[in-house]
Amino acid sequence: MALIEDLKWRYATKKYSSKRVADKDLEQIVEAINLSASSIGIQPYRLMVIDNQNLKKELGEGSFNSQIVDASHLLVFAAFASIRQEHIDYYIHLISQTRNTPVEELADFKNSISSYLLAQTDADNFIWATKQAYIGLGTGLIAAANLKIDATPMEGFDAGKFNKLLGLEKKNLKSVVILALGYRDEKKDSLANLKKVRLPIQEFSIKVD
Amino acid sequence: MALIEDLKWRYATKKYSSKRVADKDLEQIVEAINLSASSIGIQPYRLMVIDNQNLKKELGEGSFNSQIVDASHLLVFAAFASIRQEHIDYYIHLISQTRNTPVEELADFKNSISSYLLAQTDADNFIWATKQAYIGLGTGLIAAANLKIDATPMEGFDAGKFNKLLGLEKKNLKSVVILALGYRDEKKDSLANLKKVRLPIQEFSIKVD
Repeated sequence: MALIEDLKWRYATKKYSSKRVADKDLEQIVEAINLSASSIGIQPYRLMVIDNQNLKKELGEGSFNSQIVDASHLLVFAAFASIRQEHIDYYIHLISQTRNTPVEELADFKNSISSYLLAQTDADNFIWATKQAYIGLGTGLIAAANLKIDATPMEGFDAGKFNKLLGLEKKNLKSVVILALGYRDEKKDSLANLKKVRLPIQEFSIKVD
Repeated sequence: MALIEDLKWRYATKKYSSKRVADKDLEQIVEAINLSASSIGIQPYRLMVIDNQNLKKELGEGSFNSQIVDASHLLVFAAFASIRQEHIDYYIHLISQTRNTPVEELADFKNSISSYLLAQTDADNFIWATKQAYIGLGTGLIAAANLKIDATPMEGFDAGKFNKLLGLEKKNLKSVVILALGYRDEKKDSLANLKKVRLPIQEFSIKVD
């Protein structure tokens, strides 16, 4: 399966060359992420796409992750800070439009997801939304590898600063994980040729009878 | 990109036929998940693989998700309940073995991840471990679709019951999300031919300059 080869090929790139990711490749990666599964299908996160060098510099200032500045593009996965009735209503509207189904026929579904999601705290829904974003992150890593584009997923970034610089708060979003995209600088990246470390499959997966 | 076609093809299958997933296909899906990225590379989750029909029946009893019983196989993603020094030591050992690097040379890395992870609460580390499992879930969905195997990711299951029946507690694991695998019953599944609902790409992804 080509997927397995792609997964073996990729690694969390440390040093990037100056080569830029082409727009058409970036579009495919973003489309793949948008097609990722999410619980209930509601996609409670958004993807900020950044290629402005000055902005990347501001975001990466003081960070030990030089990839923020050096990579061609930076994707910021930002989860909904809260889930409100309007989000559910919009999702129902989207289903209705896409499938040509009258909104009335979706009332039971709408009530069921409303009573579930709106009963949870914002903090719980934010964690839930974050998990959905991570499904998208998994997709993004695979899409990039498939195009032989290098990538670095990063959790250790200053989320508060990102939220502020990207104006996320007023969009009801909070940054949760970021993904640098570009091309490895094989000479400078000491990680580029290291063997991938993974659990023996019998330890990772446990057959239960 | 074939990946985009695969993502469009898949959907959260509701009704499964009795056709079983072949062992060699299952192995590829599990291998792909094991190759998924995880923060620091530490893979703080395990994958329970279940095809025992009686066990599936016990797990699915009383659930509105008939897929637990009806699908060919069930994968249970189970995250570490806590992260302890021994987990970090084992990971360092694995790196050392795989890359033929003396453990001493990994001391700085070991200290840095220890001081980060062991300072967090078990609750925080569990959420962090869960997010890593969701990256694997994203990979598993793609691997299955690539093999034209249907899948249903499910969050709404009785985690306490799963933990008990699968003996997860004594393994320091807690079930976080499950994935049914099998083949759709296209005649019985009203969702099989519905159009996929996704955000317009300009709403999902936001270019920031």
